[in-house]
Amino acid sequence: MNPTACLLVIGNEILSGRTQDVNVQYIARRLSETGITLSEVRIIPDIRAVIVRNVTEARAAYDNVFTTGGIGPTHDDITSACVAESFGVPWVHHSETFSLLEAHFAPGEFNAARQRMATMPQGATPIRNAVSVAPGFTMGNVHVMAGVPRIMRAMFEEVLPTLPHGTPVTSQAWHANGLYEGTLAAPLEAIQERYPAIDIGSYPYRLDESQRGVCLLCKGTDTQAVSDAASAVRDLITGLGFAPLPGEPAKS
Amino acid sequence: MNPTACLLVIGNEILSGRTQDVNVQYIARRLSETGITLSEVRIIPDIRAVIVRNVTEARAAYDNVFTTGGIGPTHDDITSACVAESFGVPWVHHSETFSLLEAHFAPGEFNAARQRMATMPQGATPIRNAVSVAPGFTMGNVHVMAGVPRIMRAMFEEVLPTLPHGTPVTSQAWHANGLYEGTLAAPLEAIQERYPAIDIGSYPYRLDESQRGVCLLCKGTDTQAVSDAASAVRDLITGLGFAPLPGEPAKS
Repeated sequence: MNPTACLLVIGNEILSGRTQDVNVQYIARRLSETGITLSEVRIIPDIRAVIVRNVTEARAAYDNVFTTGGIGPTHDDITSACVAESFGVPWVHHSETFSLLEAHFAPGEFNAARQRMATMPQGATPIRNAVSVAPGFTMGNVHVMAGVPRIMRAMFEEVLPTLPHGTPVTSQAWHANGLYEGTLAAPLEAIQERYPAIDIGSYPYRLDESQRGVCLLCKGTDTQAVSDAASAVRDLITGLGFAPLPGEPAKS
Repeated sequence: MNPTACLLVIGNEILSGRTQDVNVQYIARRLSETGITLSEVRIIPDIRAVIVRNVTEARAAYDNVFTTGGIGPTHDDITSACVAESFGVPWVHHSETFSLLEAHFAPGEFNAARQRMATMPQGATPIRNAVSVAPGFTMGNVHVMAGVPRIMRAMFEEVLPTLPHGTPVTSQAWHANGLYEGTLAAPLEAIQERYPAIDIGSYPYRLDESQRGVCLLCKGTDTQAVSDAASAVRDLITGLGFAPLPGEPAKS
């Protein structure tokens, strides 16, 4: 059984539609490659009680919790204090991080707001990274990262190698132009039943007005079973009188 | 108090990183314009027990629940049956939808898999739309929609006018090149305290290697207060010796 993870995306800017999230897909792909199952993503607002409740629920339910957003210097950056509250520990200056930030800023610039970025739950370990001086941090099984994608990625790639990995998920896809889901549903289900450990997804696509089809994706941690299921899928497409094409269809 | 909403994004393809979700932003924007508060988004896998639990939790906690994904004809399309289970009602053929679909398909093509798309929780109302013959449906306060963005949008736009609206959220933004969050955090917090009903967000941006800055966004349902808070934000930028620019920065 692979380790599990939950991602908490913290930020009003996603829930209002101002910002198109791109962190979910990045984290999802990297976890999948690492054999950690992303079981759930929650996008929640910058409200203290909501963040605390979700961190508390998620860290009990999953092996790993990642959070993105809310760790800057402004009043709407409350993730760090919320994580402290969830763990029932004080929110305190992290002296090493404090010194690091102090050295970074020009004299007089290291004001109270910036000092806030050196404040962490007691017992947290900073996530240093090459992109931002202000670190994220790990507290227990909770990994607190920035929301800005460039910084999030740098932090995530620092944390990921330190976590227990599972068996990477591999996948094989076949697609066929002109084939509809409704045509293949019954025999596809039979293949799914034959390979219960493989996750077979059926995704209709539409390249343009006239070109449509369906992509069948076999995913799992057992490479041989993935390959066998994919062969069965390919044969199914052929048997229905369509031309199986390897991989995903080219993006429209 | 505006009505609330929760969006359940149902699909392994989002959690595996195969697919970049674009439905969240669309729904978030339209709800915001309509005065319905999107309080939470959950992205969950195609697992029956998980879907049922989340539908049950969400429909109790929020005025409106939207789901995307899992209503096609294949074995991985289980949303509809899960909603029936959450409401404790049978999952039955909807005769009007059955006839509609039957008429749509060529003789012999309306197989068991396609008949499945005419199956709904007892008491559900179909969400007909101009894009797909197979409808979504509304059951209680739960609105079940397709995952394919084009179809989801058509269904969503059918449902939205039927829901109780609130006061639309309006926003005003100012941004300034060269300004950092750490510089303005304290006076910005003072503005936030003066306008507690306005949500003031601070978003750093980076147009290229040399052009950075911060965007300050004032949002709320009270247009006058949004305008006043935005004026205060503009004056704050000026007072710090930077040039306030209206709106959001141009995308890098």
